[in-house]
Amino acid sequence: MASQSCSAAQLASFFGPNTTNATGAAEYICSQFSGVSDRFTDTSFAVDSTYLLFSAYLVFSMQLGFAMLCAGSVRAKNTMNIMLTNVLDAAAGGLFYYMFGYAFAFGGPSNGFIGKHYFGLKNIPTSSSDYSSFLYQWAFAIAAAGITSGSIAERTQFVAYLIYSSFLTGFVYPVVSHWFWSPDGWASAFNTGDLLFGSGVIDFAGSGVVHMVGGLAGLYGALIEGPRIGRFDHGGRAVALRGHSASLVVLGTFLLWFGWYGFNPGSFNRILVPYVSGNYYGQWSAVGRTAVTTTLAGCTAALTTLFVKRILSGHWNVTDVCNGLLGGFAAITAGCSVVEPWAAIICGFVAALVLIGCNQLAEKVKFDDPLEAAQLHGGCGAWGVIFTSLFATEDYVSQVYPDKPGRPYGLFMGGGGRLLAAHIIQILVIIGWVSATMGPLFFILHKLKLLRISEDDELAGMDLTRHGGFAYAYEDDEDAHKHGIQMKRIEPTSITPN
Amino acid sequence: MASQSCSAAQLASFFGPNTTNATGAAEYICSQFSGVSDRFTDTSFAVDSTYLLFSAYLVFSMQLGFAMLCAGSVRAKNTMNIMLTNVLDAAAGGLFYYMFGYAFAFGGPSNGFIGKHYFGLKNIPTSSSDYSSFLYQWAFAIAAAGITSGSIAERTQFVAYLIYSSFLTGFVYPVVSHWFWSPDGWASAFNTGDLLFGSGVIDFAGSGVVHMVGGLAGLYGALIEGPRIGRFDHGGRAVALRGHSASLVVLGTFLLWFGWYGFNPGSFNRILVPYVSGNYYGQWSAVGRTAVTTTLAGCTAALTTLFVKRILSGHWNVTDVCNGLLGGFAAITAGCSVVEPWAAIICGFVAALVLIGCNQLAEKVKFDDPLEAAQLHGGCGAWGVIFTSLFATEDYVSQVYPDKPGRPYGLFMGGGGRLLAAHIIQILVIIGWVSATMGPLFFILHKLKLLRISEDDELAGMDLTRHGGFAYAYEDDEDAHKHGIQMKRIEPTSITPN
Amino acid sequence: MASQSCSAAQLASFFGPNTTNATGAAEYICSQFSGVSDRFTDTSFAVDSTYLLFSAYLVFSMQLGFAMLCAGSVRAKNTMNIMLTNVLDAAAGGLFYYMFGYAFAFGGPSNGFIGKHYFGLKNIPTSSSDYSSFLYQWAFAIAAAGITSGSIAERTQFVAYLIYSSFLTGFVYPVVSHWFWSPDGWASAFNTGDLLFGSGVIDFAGSGVVHMVGGLAGLYGALIEGPRIGRFDHGGRAVALRGHSASLVVLGTFLLWFGWYGFNPGSFNRILVPYVSGNYYGQWSAVGRTAVTTTLAGCTAALTTLFVKRILSGHWNVTDVCNGLLGGFAAITAGCSVVEPWAAIICGFVAALVLIGCNQLAEKVKFDDPLEAAQLHGGCGAWGVIFTSLFATEDYVSQVYPDKPGRPYGLFMGGGGRLLAAHIIQILVIIGWVSATMGPLFFILHKLKLLRISEDDELAGMDLTRHGGFAYAYEDDEDAHKHGIQMKRIEPTSITPN
Repeated sequence: MASQSCSAAQLASFFGPNTTNATGAAEYICSQFSGVSDRFTDTSFAVDSTYLLFSAYLVFSMQLGFAMLCAGSVRAKNTMNIMLTNVLDAAAGGLFYYMFGYAFAFGGPSNGFIGKHYFGLKNIPTSSSDYSSFLYQWAFAIAAAGITSGSIAERTQFVAYLIYSSFLTGFVYPVVSHWFWSPDGWASAFNTGDLLFGSGVIDFAGSGVVHMVGGLAGLYGALIEGPRIGRFDHGGRAVALRGHSASLVVLGTFLLWFGWYGFNPGSFNRILVPYVSGNYYGQWSAVGRTAVTTTLAGCTAALTTLFVKRILSGHWNVTDVCNGLLGGFAAITAGCSVVEPWAAIICGFVAALVLIGCNQLAEKVKFDDPLEAAQLHGGCGAWGVIFTSLFATEDYVSQVYPDKPGRPYGLFMGGGGRLLAAHIIQILVIIGWVSATMGPLFFILHKLKLLRISEDDELAGMDLTRHGGFAYAYEDDEDAHKHGIQMKRIEPTSITPN
Repeated sequence: MASQSCSAAQLASFFGPNTTNATGAAEYICSQFSGVSDRFTDTSFAVDSTYLLFSAYLVFSMQLGFAMLCAGSVRAKNTMNIMLTNVLDAAAGGLFYYMFGYAFAFGGPSNGFIGKHYFGLKNIPTSSSDYSSFLYQWAFAIAAAGITSGSIAERTQFVAYLIYSSFLTGFVYPVVSHWFWSPDGWASAFNTGDLLFGSGVIDFAGSGVVHMVGGLAGLYGALIEGPRIGRFDHGGRAVALRGHSASLVVLGTFLLWFGWYGFNPGSFNRILVPYVSGNYYGQWSAVGRTAVTTTLAGCTAALTTLFVKRILSGHWNVTDVCNGLLGGFAAITAGCSVVEPWAAIICGFVAALVLIGCNQLAEKVKFDDPLEAAQLHGGCGAWGVIFTSLFATEDYVSQVYPDKPGRPYGLFMGGGGRLLAAHIIQILVIIGWVSATMGPLFFILHKLKLLRISEDDELAGMDLTRHGGFAYAYEDDEDAHKHGIQMKRIEPTSITPN
Repeated sequence: MASQSCSAAQLASFFGPNTTNATGAAEYICSQFSGVSDRFTDTSFAVDSTYLLFSAYLVFSMQLGFAMLCAGSVRAKNTMNIMLTNVLDAAAGGLFYYMFGYAFAFGGPSNGFIGKHYFGLKNIPTSSSDYSSFLYQWAFAIAAAGITSGSIAERTQFVAYLIYSSFLTGFVYPVVSHWFWSPDGWASAFNTGDLLFGSGVIDFAGSGVVHMVGGLAGLYGALIEGPRIGRFDHGGRAVALRGHSASLVVLGTFLLWFGWYGFNPGSFNRILVPYVSGNYYGQWSAVGRTAVTTTLAGCTAALTTLFVKRILSGHWNVTDVCNGLLGGFAAITAGCSVVEPWAAIICGFVAALVLIGCNQLAEKVKFDDPLEAAQLHGGCGAWGVIFTSLFATEDYVSQVYPDKPGRPYGLFMGGGGRLLAAHIIQILVIIGWVSATMGPLFFILHKLKLLRISEDDELAGMDLTRHGGFAYAYEDDEDAHKHGIQMKRIEPTSITPN
């Protein structure tokens, strides 16, 4: 910015020797500009913090979305259980991410593998890392844990939830986010040293870092536990175990949509960044464009799911449409900031097909995930990572990741294959890392008989056996309601015989 | 702004010939101010974009509000159906508004009737139109479609929804918003040429443009379909077909209230607009005042409804209060930015009476609108348009619509009748336009037997026949729950006989 | 700020007599800086208003949270009643706070007891008080009323609600907020004259002002009404009267969590406040830190409740965890801006124990509060007031309350006992004031037989007797649904006899 470069020496030379105190005048004027510059700095911090904090609040609202989506997608008898896990993802995640997680993820300078500063937020804030940044990243971390909880719903011991959730939020996820997002992560596109394949991974808001990690963790959990009782009949055919409330599913889906506007556009962290000072086009436009690509990908995926499922199943299914929508969001998350709106439509269209395919495959191999979370976040997330490496445009990549000019971009946009190569590495590395951490964890829990609940408990429902009762009581036992309305309904049948 | 007017020539003349390089010094100083000015431009874009984007997110949350309000207001057997239409309003609306709608509405320069640029967001952003603007307007467009879906709930074929929703979002609504909101709309108060009656229409956030359009479209749909089976008994008396969940109604209402803070105050689009630079009073105050008028109108309408309905019906009815509240909001939407808070109280009071009157009229003529959407958004919306032309104050009109000094304002505030005349034209034109477009559309669908579902389907409920099953399953068939708790409840009746 | 202090005289003297028009040049330059300064003023107002308005919207969303939390926590037969009270808290509160409340609270200059300007928002805006400030404070006022409605749920006449809610929002609460928050409140830490004990009360976002007031009002209401029928059996043992929907409880809790990010960090009112201009550390950091302390206190309280209740009751209880979480929030509210994150963990830990203790005490003395609101907001609120006086740090106190240097801070942080003394006074004064106002009000209502509903009404449920019917209708009487699905379920019992 011009005002920061006010040179008193140069200005004094313009004034010259006839001016009574040329140096004094020049220094006076430049000190005024310096004050102006400081005030712009203040303004930037305030504007960007406002932007990041409210984005963090939106991302946090996704936890409510997950809770409602999960609750509606399970049977009534397990509602309390699943909602408790969602509350505790946020709560335990808060403590663990405060103590370790944020430090592992963003506590640079690191050794490239894992961060090592900021434990317990020590020495926060710095010029690059403020409390708002912690809050924003915490909301991401608990989203990853929320994804996993869906996959293993309705059959997992509560203690196992507490263990995996803390481990995922406090260690597994932070390490991945360090690799791909921290300025000293080995595969980060922000890396200030050598970039992976001269490119680094452009996983802007985390199709890989968040969704694949959460989905794959769920995959291992659900695989090791096996399907819920009754999910596949004696002949091996899949039986739908319908969730107990479509209203909660739609509520949760819309809340996730709402929160995704914090998740994707918010991942810029800052909005007051001009690309060329004084021009209407700047990071504020890129933020808006990211909100638009996000919207279009979700919308397209929802419509695609609607029609394809109509053909496959014969009816218009709102819960399928909701899942399709979320699949579109999970896919666009990686590339939302670096692709054109029209490309987002392609992203969403394919994401819907990927989800339908993954679901058919899951049925075929008798894999049971009550929320389709492994398929949705794992499958569509992986597609999103690939999609980005195909459709990222040169301009947008250079604006969003400005430090290294001439960097690779999408293959289909003429940017060569190096971004694709980096993204394939990302997928493999995430699969490897989650397999090496969450796989063994779930396996050990399984071997210790801490993972799955007993058959009796599963049939009775966890709310009754573990959480103090059912989630709902629409009819009171002790009052007139029952004896009034309720009896009348039952009477007709008792009259029938005789 | 002063710093933009730095004149190096003038400054150089002050320095005079004795200064070594007067021109150099002056240009140096002015270039510094020019840099400062650029930075203010950047800051404005960032602040205003933040403001508009988060307002857009709030407006989007209204779609969730509509979904919950609609779901709670219909019978359980049609819940999946109505929620699916709400999800698809947003999704199909996203694609159609991206492809055509935004271009029709804001793609100026236009021919006064319809915009013709920005199809598929081509050439966006410009200095006046950024992605955030598209997102904000899209959220408005789907709100209009959401209103209509309420009117025709519980008896409309799903395909008809898809057709009318796309047509409304992609064409009918955009054209209306072009006329009244675009800088080259023929009746827009922002028109840079001649204003309609020297005034133009002050429909700030769309009592007419959004609410009347959505409500009237619903009116035609509901009229042509006729009432739901059982809504009027053989004697012609109205029978309340109560919605299945008051909790969802209240949830939806509060979400709409929450979102209305994006709808009304957000319609300023920009918040960093001083009326006199350096003063505490500026557009930020007008934005806050708009939030206050919105709040007071809704609160007053809610209380009015509470007491009037108590007198009429004998009980305190929460769903009526919710509808009254929303009626107050729909009414204040046109004038929220240009009236005093005390006037908003009048607005809300009358809106409640208008809604009650419209509802009584609807019963009399056997018009059935499950959400009262035509009455609420159409009736209260029309009142809001009139109200604005009566109570708009001179000061606020000149601040919010600053380009043409001395323009007309509210009749009761001494501003003459020209604003009222313009607003009567608006009402007539909207009635005409919706009658000419949505009326025939619904009629053709009706004639093609694509509009209303069969009687059997209506009795059975659409969820069962079209959407794959009921929305709720609070009791599981296959598990111990039933055999435990459920049986106990049923036992008494089985003991009775014998 | 440097640019505001541009001295044309000094600058002119630097230019000296050889400059053609030294004064002209200096004045020209300084006027440019003056223009810049004005523009910064505009920017500050816009940024701070954006921050405050969106914070207000978040606080408003807590009203939805209360509605859902309350609805889920009562029995189905009283759902409409409790939700109506929540809607009306907001609506009646809007009018009363507009007419009187805001004036009583912030209409300085006052006499120290009560404000006396701004009735009906007259003369708003001023340089210190804009419409956004009214909106923000209104959202706080209705939160206090919302707390109380929980304590007296399921047995209070509707008219009594209208009376106490208006009285609390329009008078009792505004007076308290005047004392502790207004610049001329006698115990306010912002007081520009003498501070109470040289300190004033640091109740940043209102553990005392909002939560204790709401909770104590509820305590009086619930005490005077007595417990719900069936809450204690003939032997005097407590019987849980379970709420009808845990999903609504979790929904409400998460919404309150979401809204608390407006409640606590938003209480700064302004975010564009540098502590040292040009540095990354400023009020934006303090705002973020406040969001973090809020989060950590809630998380810790939730986890503490989880494990302690597991030990006490033998199961993992989601509604208890939700209440624990909210207790942590209520406690941290006073000190959120002036304590370290680690201290927030202590705050939350103790808050959970306080709530559990208060609940046990309540059962022992047969006090029935359906929402535990008196225990939660009163008990944890009081703890929060004490906590702040123990753990407030010197640095943060001096930054957040900058006007009086060297002021007292937390006892355990080496700041002496004066803050503790002031906070003990606050607790006593709030107890006294609420006892002197709400106590008599509830007692008079009780004596006039306007407080509690009849026994018959209570058994039947208020929705049926007062609000026009039940909140839910999952099964339709008149349609095929019943005869299809429903009959099948009932058939087995009808086969049994004969």
